[in-house]
Amino acid sequence: MPRTKGDHEARRREVSAAVWQVMATRGFAGLTLRAVAAELGATTGLLTHYFPTKRALVAYALDLLEERTLARPRRTTGAGLASVRDALLDILPLTPEATDSNRIWVSSWDASLSDPELSADYARKYAQSRDRLRERVIAAQELGELPPGDPAEIASAAQAFVLGLVVQSLFDPAAYPPERQVQLLDDHLARLASARG
Amino acid sequence: MPRTKGDHEARRREVSAAVWQVMATRGFAGLTLRAVAAELGATTGLLTHYFPTKRALVAYALDLLEERTLARPRRTTGAGLASVRDALLDILPLTPEATDSNRIWVSSWDASLSDPELSADYARKYAQSRDRLRERVIAAQELGELPPGDPAEIASAAQAFVLGLVVQSLFDPAAYPPERQVQLLDDHLARLASARG
Repeated sequence: MPRTKGDHEARRREVSAAVWQVMATRGFAGLTLRAVAAELGATTGLLTHYFPTKRALVAYALDLLEERTLARPRRTTGAGLASVRDALLDILPLTPEATDSNRIWVSSWDASLSDPELSADYARKYAQSRDRLRERVIAAQELGELPPGDPAEIASAAQAFVLGLVVQSLFDPAAYPPERQVQLLDDHLARLASARG
Repeated sequence: MPRTKGDHEARRREVSAAVWQVMATRGFAGLTLRAVAAELGATTGLLTHYFPTKRALVAYALDLLEERTLARPRRTTGAGLASVRDALLDILPLTPEATDSNRIWVSSWDASLSDPELSADYARKYAQSRDRLRERVIAAQELGELPPGDPAEIASAAQAFVLGLVVQSLFDPAAYPPERQVQLLDDHLARLASARG
């Protein structure tokens, strides 16, 4: 039977789902053709058709992570401080999907820190994320919801806080259930709002 | 010539230094017998004497990380808020040695998140670290240097903030030179100190 484009796309989606599942469970360190084949119930031979090398598999996994991160739903509950809060909530592992995604991001830090090109790419992405957050901080300051003060510093601090909270929540989900993560974030924002300018 | 205990200890130190250097450069994902052998200028055959399996090498590397972390010099500039600041400064990558050590910690997150036992061990260590920080927060509150407020929440938030700052500083050392890291930490502490209790 001839293979159609639809078959190809369907198989590609299955492979992506298997790669994602392996990363969420074993991290990049456990991402091997053998593990993806087992997840897929296929032979490693079939997979070498998609990923001739380990490097190709890792590159695909990183693209998948980026793609799924960009495609994730975003909160838009309001302007100013509400939009700062939205952006930070969007990062936290508050759902099983967001937990998998964060688990994979944290795992990818090791690979990217060892690769100067990838590391520069990550640094650029985090800087862009800080810039977007800074714009929201400025809007909150203009609305009088945050006191004056260097918006870049406030954005950097909020980003650091949320990334660290991601790591703690991944290691200790019992100590950091979603409601505690949200409470810690809201306490952080309340301190920002009540700080002297 | 007979091998003495001194020879053995000296060789062990050389092996440790090589394992450390490989982890600082390539992370746990790049930690292989071959890489350690190359760093040491030795054969992989010699190394299998020390590490019969990859698992043994990783276990050794994790012990080394723990040992060096425990042995690192600690700041003790004062009581109360100064001691909260000391504990947080001790974590940040403010020197080349602390940068290597943090690089290795971040790298170890991937391996430990994939291993339930190791993951539980990390969760325990981070909880202990928060408890120690909480004691310092309470002391600062008793001295009137921090407003009243749940000391466990303040400790959790400070730990998250510093861990996230570690990650950002590793990816973007140009944007986060030591003086900027210290400034961000001091801004965080100033907000804590000026917050309404």
